[in-house]
Amino acid sequence: MPKVVDHDERRLELVDATWRIIARHGIEGATMREIAMEAGFANGALKPYFPTKDALLEFAFGHVFNRTNNRIAKVTAGRSGLSALRAFCLEVLPLDEERVSEARIVIPFWQQAIHDRQKAAIHQQSMDKWLAAIGKYLAEARGAGEVEVEVTDAVLARQLLNMLLGAQILAALSTRTATQPPLTEQLDAFLALLRRR
Amino acid sequence: MPKVVDHDERRLELVDATWRIIARHGIEGATMREIAMEAGFANGALKPYFPTKDALLEFAFGHVFNRTNNRIAKVTAGRSGLSALRAFCLEVLPLDEERVSEARIVIPFWQQAIHDRQKAAIHQQSMDKWLAAIGKYLAEARGAGEVEVEVTDAVLARQLLNMLLGAQILAALSTRTATQPPLTEQLDAFLALLRRR
Repeated sequence: MPKVVDHDERRLELVDATWRIIARHGIEGATMREIAMEAGFANGALKPYFPTKDALLEFAFGHVFNRTNNRIAKVTAGRSGLSALRAFCLEVLPLDEERVSEARIVIPFWQQAIHDRQKAAIHQQSMDKWLAAIGKYLAEARGAGEVEVEVTDAVLARQLLNMLLGAQILAALSTRTATQPPLTEQLDAFLALLRRR
Repeated sequence: MPKVVDHDERRLELVDATWRIIARHGIEGATMREIAMEAGFANGALKPYFPTKDALLEFAFGHVFNRTNNRIAKVTAGRSGLSALRAFCLEVLPLDEERVSEARIVIPFWQQAIHDRQKAAIHQQSMDKWLAAIGKYLAEARGAGEVEVEVTDAVLARQLLNMLLGAQILAALSTRTATQPPLTEQLDAFLALLRRR
């Protein structure tokens, strides 16, 4: 079915073009016309793929989230407990240009979700999925004696999730080249805090 | 100088109207015309105060940050160390409707700062100021033997700041009435982790 594959590929080309335009002009300046031009589409050719800018943005966010989750699945395969948790966090943290770009698409999505219940629900589902994953790794870590701190797993999972989200903001908005101290050091220091009784 | 006071008041009325419109329609739907109407201004009457929507948003963000800092100054007066740090965090966390509203103005500002270097610089200055405050409280807490953990203060300050920023997102976007477990519990659990050697 070569035609179907083509359509999927063209959708991803549009997602990439959307990122570049948003990074350059912001979400308000990202018109369907400019996204079409950036992706090398004729002006009317976008409509069959995405009837509205909203539909395109929703797809783009879903794609970022799926891509992150695919990377997570790869790096956590065969791991459990703190080792899996660390691998999970390292994939979410904006440690390279690809993931800083992802942060730059997620922040405009958050901004829209403030007044768009459907986008807010997508965000909530994504975060619930991540909280469940973090909770599973923490439970495994407790079982293996890797985490002995008295704080509940539900609290630890929320703290870690908030840290991961806050790191997206600092990275996406930073006018400097690197965070000092580095994000990996912040993560490892937090995981070290969990080991104590 | 009653005229000057009047102008300041009208600016703050415009800021409040901006929040309400953004919360309702998002930043893209917040036109100068709608903000003027919401604040009870004639359509052209905004220009002397804010020539552009950008100038208005920049002022609105500055106002949110100043207001938060004024509250922080009040609650930390006469405190130091962990007690001051806790009071600081409680003022930043979106624990009531006023601070959830503040989160809803800050997220659109972040979104614009991604592609606007001037807004990014304002954000960076604000965060540097908060990191310095957190660092000062942590140093006092070390001096008083309240914090004995081996992680450096620079790392702890970043972790805490990321947690505070992440909490803004979860609160502003939440489709539920409350976070489980509550933010205060997350904060106190983190501060408890710092006490150990």
